Amino acid sequence: MADSDYSNKHVEFKVPEPTPEEAAELETMYQKMDETYLKPLWRQIGGLMPNTPEPAAVAHKWVWADLIKLARRSGELVPVGRGGERRALGFANPGLGGNTYISPTLWAAIQYLAPGENAPEHRHSQNAFRFVIEGEGVWTVVNGDAVPMKRGDLLLTPGWNFHGHHNIATEPMAWLDGLDIPFQHQMDTGFFEYGSEALTDESTPEFSRSEKLWAHPGLRPLAFPGQTSSSPIGRYSWAHTDAALNDQLALEDAGFPGVAGPGHAAIRYTNPTTGGDVMSTIRCEFHRLRPSAETEPTHEVGNRVFQVFEGTGTINVGEKSFEVAKGDVVNIPSWQKWSVQADTDGLDLFCFSDFPIFEKLDLARVFIPKGI
Amino acid sequence: MADSDYSNKHVEFKVPEPTPEEAAELETMYQKMDETYLKPLWRQIGGLMPNTPEPAAVAHKWVWADLIKLARRSGELVPVGRGGERRALGFANPGLGGNTYISPTLWAAIQYLAPGENAPEHRHSQNAFRFVIEGEGVWTVVNGDAVPMKRGDLLLTPGWNFHGHHNIATEPMAWLDGLDIPFQHQMDTGFFEYGSEALTDESTPEFSRSEKLWAHPGLRPLAFPGQTSSSPIGRYSWAHTDAALNDQLALEDAGFPGVAGPGHAAIRYTNPTTGGDVMSTIRCEFHRLRPSAETEPTHEVGNRVFQVFEGTGTINVGEKSFEVAKGDVVNIPSWQKWSVQADTDGLDLFCFSDFPIFEKLDLARVFIPKGI
Amino acid sequence: MADSDYSNKHVEFKVPEPTPEEAAELETMYQKMDETYLKPLWRQIGGLMPNTPEPAAVAHKWVWADLIKLARRSGELVPVGRGGERRALGFANPGLGGNTYISPTLWAAIQYLAPGENAPEHRHSQNAFRFVIEGEGVWTVVNGDAVPMKRGDLLLTPGWNFHGHHNIATEPMAWLDGLDIPFQHQMDTGFFEYGSEALTDESTPEFSRSEKLWAHPGLRPLAFPGQTSSSPIGRYSWAHTDAALNDQLALEDAGFPGVAGPGHAAIRYTNPTTGGDVMSTIRCEFHRLRPSAETEPTHEVGNRVFQVFEGTGTINVGEKSFEVAKGDVVNIPSWQKWSVQADTDGLDLFCFSDFPIFEKLDLARVFIPKGI
Amino acid sequence: MADSDYSNKHVEFKVPEPTPEEAAELETMYQKMDETYLKPLWRQIGGLMPNTPEPAAVAHKWVWADLIKLARRSGELVPVGRGGERRALGFANPGLGGNTYISPTLWAAIQYLAPGENAPEHRHSQNAFRFVIEGEGVWTVVNGDAVPMKRGDLLLTPGWNFHGHHNIATEPMAWLDGLDIPFQHQMDTGFFEYGSEALTDESTPEFSRSEKLWAHPGLRPLAFPGQTSSSPIGRYSWAHTDAALNDQLALEDAGFPGVAGPGHAAIRYTNPTTGGDVMSTIRCEFHRLRPSAETEPTHEVGNRVFQVFEGTGTINVGEKSFEVAKGDVVNIPSWQKWSVQADTDGLDLFCFSDFPIFEKLDLARVFIPKGI
Repeated sequence: MADSDYSNKHVEFKVPEPTPEEAAELETMYQKMDETYLKPLWRQIGGLMPNTPEPAAVAHKWVWADLIKLARRSGELVPVGRGGERRALGFANPGLGGNTYISPTLWAAIQYLAPGENAPEHRHSQNAFRFVIEGEGVWTVVNGDAVPMKRGDLLLTPGWNFHGHHNIATEPMAWLDGLDIPFQHQMDTGFFEYGSEALTDESTPEFSRSEKLWAHPGLRPLAFPGQTSSSPIGRYSWAHTDAALNDQLALEDAGFPGVAGPGHAAIRYTNPTTGGDVMSTIRCEFHRLRPSAETEPTHEVGNRVFQVFEGTGTINVGEKSFEVAKGDVVNIPSWQKWSVQADTDGLDLFCFSDFPIFEKLDLARVFIPKGI
Repeated sequence: MADSDYSNKHVEFKVPEPTPEEAAELETMYQKMDETYLKPLWRQIGGLMPNTPEPAAVAHKWVWADLIKLARRSGELVPVGRGGERRALGFANPGLGGNTYISPTLWAAIQYLAPGENAPEHRHSQNAFRFVIEGEGVWTVVNGDAVPMKRGDLLLTPGWNFHGHHNIATEPMAWLDGLDIPFQHQMDTGFFEYGSEALTDESTPEFSRSEKLWAHPGLRPLAFPGQTSSSPIGRYSWAHTDAALNDQLALEDAGFPGVAGPGHAAIRYTNPTTGGDVMSTIRCEFHRLRPSAETEPTHEVGNRVFQVFEGTGTINVGEKSFEVAKGDVVNIPSWQKWSVQADTDGLDLFCFSDFPIFEKLDLARVFIPKGI
Repeated sequence: MADSDYSNKHVEFKVPEPTPEEAAELETMYQKMDETYLKPLWRQIGGLMPNTPEPAAVAHKWVWADLIKLARRSGELVPVGRGGERRALGFANPGLGGNTYISPTLWAAIQYLAPGENAPEHRHSQNAFRFVIEGEGVWTVVNGDAVPMKRGDLLLTPGWNFHGHHNIATEPMAWLDGLDIPFQHQMDTGFFEYGSEALTDESTPEFSRSEKLWAHPGLRPLAFPGQTSSSPIGRYSWAHTDAALNDQLALEDAGFPGVAGPGHAAIRYTNPTTGGDVMSTIRCEFHRLRPSAETEPTHEVGNRVFQVFEGTGTINVGEKSFEVAKGDVVNIPSWQKWSVQADTDGLDLFCFSDFPIFEKLDLARVFIPKGI
Repeated sequence: MADSDYSNKHVEFKVPEPTPEEAAELETMYQKMDETYLKPLWRQIGGLMPNTPEPAAVAHKWVWADLIKLARRSGELVPVGRGGERRALGFANPGLGGNTYISPTLWAAIQYLAPGENAPEHRHSQNAFRFVIEGEGVWTVVNGDAVPMKRGDLLLTPGWNFHGHHNIATEPMAWLDGLDIPFQHQMDTGFFEYGSEALTDESTPEFSRSEKLWAHPGLRPLAFPGQTSSSPIGRYSWAHTDAALNDQLALEDAGFPGVAGPGHAAIRYTNPTTGGDVMSTIRCEFHRLRPSAETEPTHEVGNRVFQVFEGTGTINVGEKSFEVAKGDVVNIPSWQKWSVQADTDGLDLFCFSDFPIFEKLDLARVFIPKGI
């Protein structure tokens, strides 16, 4: 779709100036409409149907030092257990009226587990992942499969899978939770159910069973044919992600295609039964920028959230520029022009988004302004 | 998915009663979190992640007599033209805080066009349909194709198709507009563009060109292969809908399958290039109940809107019962138990819903409680 | 895929002339290979892997007068009944070694039923259709649904549906049968089972039940959701086909797109649950050429069979030109350049092909040489 | 589909014994039909449409010692080069009339390359793979990407990709070639084109570029979105296959699901962009049976070919039993009951089949007789 310049602006609706008598009649009519739970389109079309998306959400940076400090403090003051379920600090976008939404669709939170603590099992229709920014020693138990968590790992708990966490290390551990809670809350699609109070598997294997079955490149077990709506891989381990990114950069060095842009390696985590996204509403990616590399400014329908994994750089969103370092989180609202630039040490970024929703509903658009 | 009894309720989160000193420390921490745009999950999980959907939207009935009276009044007082674009009265669900949303996803409105009036052309990413409850003499021009509108017709203007309306009759005309404005507004996916001020085709053919190409059962033009995300049929004429429903009832009389339930004929409007829904976010159906027939009480994820086309009956939603007659509009919020019962003259109902969204995202659920 | 000129020819394989001693050794080796059921690629690659398809099948015309005369004669001499199952005269392509294959994939036959005769019920994995070139008074019973047959109708009996025929008219009736027998025979996929000796439904309705459920444009019964591998429509009646073709020509007259080429209206029969082909292996189309219209010469992977429904004209295939009139049948082998030209009265053609096989297997190719 | 007992046999077609005069008339009619290229169905239906598939192909074993000996001999006597293209010994099923078809759809061959030899580049629409039974030191160059070949590796050269081979080792090398030549030959879909005489990449990397981009479990490069009809992975290295099989057996030992049957680990090689088969017409699998394990006797529509990779055992097909050892090749014709049993050292088997063809065309069937 050639989307020209997006500069066509809403014309002000000019009703001829009413006489005082007409004004009174209009007022009476609007009053009646209110009582009948009706609202005239002509008084609100600009707000409801803007020329281009005008998100209420704003771009914002959450600083890792603040996050981890508050997470630790909550670890001291608040127990984790049935009812509250998780010691998770959700990010509340400053533009979204106090809701714990990082975007209209996505929830992001820092979850914190002290040594020896368990988070009891439950399941919900909300899709969830965990991305580990640092530490190890926690296992997430997904439908009875104990999945290890280490720095750089991505773990999935797709909708309606029972899951709990336990920390067997001597250190507390914190990670990034991502879910589609705001989407499911606004859309009225959410279901929730308690599971076992105690974890159903207390083992601490090096690899989950899901990885033994599914994390072999291009190979699938004959015993499980067909497609599943979410990925059956419970853990995408850092070793594989790191290798894939390095291989792309090596191909670039050798003059072959593979990177997403100059100096910019990037992978998408996928569901091996379809080649598509890991879950029906959430896309997960990892980006590696070489020192001083930058991405092309882009507008996209949908919401992204970045967390810096390593390195420093700048994330530009609209008129804002955020200096970012390890652990910092920045969100990109829909259709805001954004780009990322690495500092001289390069930049590793985890990213998740709600793009699968819009691609499936034929509402996705991308616009890369040239020569700007 | 066997969804047992949906009775698992959120346990109250019992933090041990804090000492005054602990309470102060907690208060300090919560204050810091607020400043950092963080919110603890444990203080809100019940609201964000209920056991079953707890929609803010409520079931409501809009009475046709009220609707048409206000529509006429607005025809007298408010011109239709560029800027306001349409003389449409949108239904504002009493539970949705004054927004013109009939559900969190759907917009419904009565649009009114006086004799000789034109509504100028525009296009938007929002998907739209019109269903004609009565009258004729209006043509909707979709990308230059003049589509006639008559009682019982369903017209489509899928996202990003230019469209305008003109009334060549000597009578005003009113119809039901359905769009996904609330969904696209909340999701920040909306684009809008003005088109021609004057209609690009002033002809008044008996059939649109889209019908000539596509409204032949089981046949498609060789010149247009492949699938399209929305139906290429601009108008589903009443004659076909009526015949399909009568054929189902005749099959039931003869003892053969075909009806949706006893005494209940129903069709889904489809995209002939896929067999799926007419548009990516909206499903349209028509239901015909024989005298005194009733449907089975059902819970569904997603939102339905019914408009009575003919006859009288009762629509039950949760604890409410709405007596309905021609033109009345009733909405069913997500997961509310609903059923319809016809009076002794039978009942014809147009219906639209947002179910395609949830089916594509693997969030759809249906629950038919037995023995109740 | 840009397929340049297809002129790259197989280089002759030049092994240096062997000495007599080497020749003897080679001979011994080839002999051993034969005994071990091995064959060297280098002695046969040109035949097995030609530069472009070199079908054994040849283009051929079967003249209706001959066909109907032999069909009638067989009606006098041979009863129809269990064991022989059908009084069908299969077309044996002169290039296919005496097999009753009109192409390597397709079976075509003239089936003939005398007044009062029944063909007993059976089912098979082979997909089948009937196209009626003239007459009426026969009903095909498909899984207990009596489907009327009249001139211009297309009837489906997809794989593994029980079906029989009965003629209640006072005239014999003949029609074109099309199946994928050669494909399933060569691929070893065929299953066959006897059904009822007597027809399971002797009624003679004007419309089949399948049409009552499914032959309403763009509408489907709510009771039957999902996709089926074959079309649920048992009969595509001539009235709809004729109207669709006329509508395309009317659009062309008015200056709008719709026809397949200048003066060339064409429809594809489809499965309304998918928008795709009527059966998994067979495509059915109908083409109408205005007086003196002609189609563009085209090469295609796959096999077509045309039967003239009305009018006269010429079908060009490779170096051959066939003058055709009502009822004549002509086949187009894979990759042979073909075109059709109507005489001054226009030309109506039924067409079927095996193209769905090759499209699903990513083996389809089309080549339209320009400026020739 | 409940496929009962498949015992329904074709009834003999009993035409009442004709009088001599009638016999003469019939003879005249059949003669006329012959001249008109027509054949009556009633004289051939049993052969064309059997109750269950009656393949002409027979089950056969090719012994590795014979294969490798003849391959070596051909290496001494026949050069490899343009025109003959490849030193490949194709398997000619004893039931298929001297054609080099191991089944009606599949080609299998032993290809042999002497030290320092090159096989020149070409491309064809036929899909191809190589499976390496022993040796290393050959690189296959696919569209300019040098892919190493080692024992246990599976290499793909999907249709219309240029490819050549070169052997830089001091030893000759032999491997199994699998293609869909018979299918494409019979279906008239084959295209062929010469490429570079010299190899376009003479490098000898440890991993191909395709593996660097695509052989990371569950990860895909952002730069290449979308689905491709064939897998982009050029090489499935033995290390991954072996690990996946061992992981399945470890899960079985631990009491968890994963294996295809008791003591029977099995993986399918897949296209990571779809989760489906590696190529549109060919399925590739690897099976590992524990000592003395056996598979359940099964009938399937389609053709399998096994090559023993390691170990010894028995392959039962219909009434035949083949003792097999390393390198032996056995084919299973369509619908023949088959099973595999490992000897006391276990059995590793590579397997390829044409099942994707029949699954895509809705012709697949599986029948596992119980209690036999």
